[in-house]
This record gives sequence, structure tokens and C-alpha cells, in this order.
Amino acid sequence: MTSPAEIDLLGVLAYGELVAFERTAADAKLAPNLADKAALGAMAAAEFGHYEKVSAHLAKLGHDPFQAMQPFMEPLNQFHNSLTPRDWLEGLLKAYVGDGITNDFYREISAHIATETANLVSEVLADVGQANFSIERIRQAIALDPKVSGRLALWGRRLMGEMISQATLVAATRPALQELFLRPSGSDAATSATELVVMINRLTVGHAKRMDVLGLAS
Amino acid sequence: MTSPAEIDLLGVLAYGELVAFERTAADAKLAPNLADKAALGAMAAAEFGHYEKVSAHLAKLGHDPFQAMQPFMEPLNQFHNSLTPRDWLEGLLKAYVGDGITNDFYREISAHIATETANLVSEVLADVGQANFSIERIRQAIALDPKVSGRLALWGRRLMGEMISQATLVAATRPALQELFLRPSGSDAATSATELVVMINRLTVGHAKRMDVLGLAS
Repeated sequence: MTSPAEIDLLGVLAYGELVAFERTAADAKLAPNLADKAALGAMAAAEFGHYEKVSAHLAKLGHDPFQAMQPFMEPLNQFHNSLTPRDWLEGLLKAYVGDGITNDFYREISAHIATETANLVSEVLADVGQANFSIERIRQAIALDPKVSGRLALWGRRLMGEMISQATLVAATRPALQELFLRPSGSDAATSATELVVMINRLTVGHAKRMDVLGLAS
Repeated sequence: MTSPAEIDLLGVLAYGELVAFERTAADAKLAPNLADKAALGAMAAAEFGHYEKVSAHLAKLGHDPFQAMQPFMEPLNQFHNSLTPRDWLEGLLKAYVGDGITNDFYREISAHIATETANLVSEVLADVGQANFSIERIRQAIALDPKVSGRLALWGRRLMGEMISQATLVAATRPALQELFLRPSGSDAATSATELVVMINRLTVGHAKRMDVLGLAS
């Protein structure tokens, strides 16, 4: 029997990869040249491959992938629609920041899930090359025009704030999933709230480190 | 030695698949449900795979793929930007109509190109399942609301007109490519013009048949 938390986890991961594919493909459209367009296209195709793997895993566990994804559509769409990149650099930063926080989050909880699922999660979250690509392009752009960094720093703060706020909403509506990362289970509401704050702090530190790599204030 | 016409052909095909990938991924965003979104995503990923194959073939022939694609960026972007689908159905019809005309066009000229390239072209143009998918969804929509058909018929005519006009522009600037489909080679300008009209007529007949399948006036 797979736990409801594990199904939730796979559901949010599957939908996350599906929208990551859409987002990266849309970024490809903004690419300043053909080589960058092709590079983003390859990453988008890899993300679609990840979606297919998670979806197949859900089916193997006897669960309808679309049903498992459904509860996470609204918060993820909300996140993506409220923060649509206005240009190529904002798209790259969004992918870099979003993937970074997502990876940290899954690492936090992977100790608490079944081995097979944990292995799949880490396989699917393996960087498709996007982080280094984004870092390089953003650094180049800042070197060419240092004024860019103020706008991107602000964009990074908005992304982080919106992710935390949507993740908190998701946690509130999915108690099984929440228990997965707010250990110890059966703890009272006050302990859970403290755990949540502590986890958000850890995620914020990770985010700040990634912004540092770009020379951007977080 | 690969002929300039063959390099042109591979260049326009590679760029065509790259923008088809972007277009299908954008259509996935408009999908009314998760199953349709996933189906379009799979087609987009397949189209990106086609792009990679053509690109690799160009490299194998000793040509820079990006350089071969360059001359076709503007006309193809022009076509896609001037006819951006406003909704899911317009996106499906655009893919169906566009792929149909493209396939007819490549079939017209495949007899005149090297076997290896011709094989690749027909492999890459194999339908990724989009035609039947589009036909089904469009027919369902028209059955539910017959008024839809007037708007879609008009959209189909605009797509056909714009494709012909962009293709004529391309032919005018790429004499090597033009010679490939305006046989007999070495014919004078008047003969070429006649050949062009004859070919456009054949493409128009193919287009009309595809619109018929949907019950749409062409």
C-alpha cells in the first residue's frame, strides 16, 4: 500500500514537471539566438520525459496520474500565472530559483518516503543542465549591463515569496503531505507551525546562496 | 558534395520542427484538461526529437545546423507571429493544416533529393499523432456548438493564404531550393511561374480535402 502522502508527492512532482516543460518551452521562444533556443528546447524535452516517468510510476502503483496531479494544478498555475517572466533573463532566473527551491524541498522529505519512489524523485530532479546555463547567461548579462542586477534581485525576491506562499497553501490543504515534512508526526499544531518556520528558514538560506552565486541580493 | 538545395531543405525542415515544438508546447498550455495537455506535450517532445535528428544530419554532412536554419527564421517566425491561435481549437487547426501542407510540399520534392536525406525527411514528417487528435477534438467541438465551424473555416483560409504567401517569399530568395520543386531545371521564368501556380493548385486541393474531413468550407 502506497501512503496518501507518497501519492501526493508524486502528483505534485508530475504536475511540476509538466508545467516546467511548458515554461521552459515558452522560455525557448524568448531565446536571443538559435543555439540558446535549441539548448532550452532540449531541457524542455527532458522535463517532459521526467513527467512521463513519474506518471508511469503512479500508474504502476495503481493510481490515476491525472487524479493525483489534480489537487496541485491550481496552486502551481497560480504561481506560474502570477509570475510570468517578461523577458529571457527573468525566465532563466525563474527556472534557476524555482528548481533550486524545489530540489531543496524534495531533499528535505526524501528520507521519509519509500526507496523506489525516493530514487525516482532524485532521478527526475537531476539537473537537466539548466542551472549552469542560467548562471552563465545571467552573469554575462550583468557583466554587460550592471543595472540589470537590481531588477533581477527584485524578481528573485518575488519568486521566493510567491513559492513560499503557494507551498504554505498546499500544505494547509494536504494534511498527509504536510505530515511528511513536518515531523514528528502526531505533533500538535504549535509544534507543526514551528517546524514549518524552521523549514522555510532552511529553504531561504538555500535560496540566498543561489542568489549569491549570481551576485544578486536576496 | 551535398547540393545547396538539399542543405536549404534540411535547414527549413530543422527550423520548422523547432518552431513546431514551441507551437505545440504553447498549445499544451491551452488544453482544456490534463489528458489533452499531456498528449500535446508528448507530440511537442517528439517534434523536438525530429529537430535534433535533422540537426545531427546537417552536422554529419559537414554543415553548421544554425547557419542552415538562419535564412528561414524570418519567414517562419512571420507566419507564426502573424497567426497566433486565440484558443485551443485554433491551435489544433493550425497544427493540422500546417503539417498537412508541409507534408504535401515535402512529398512533391522528395523525388529530387538524395535517398538518405529523403528517408530522413519522411521519417521526421511521420505524423506524431497530431492529425487524428486534432480531427477528433475539432469534430467534437463542432458537434457541441455548430457555430464554431464558421470561425474555424475562416481561420483555415487565413492559414492557407499566409503559408502560400510566405512560401512564395522563401522561394524567391532561395533559387537553389526553388529549382528543387520547379522542375524542369533550367526552365525559363515563364515556365517556372506556371510550375509554381500548378504546384500551389495541388497544395490547395490537398488543403481542401483536409478541411472537408472536418466538415469545414475551404
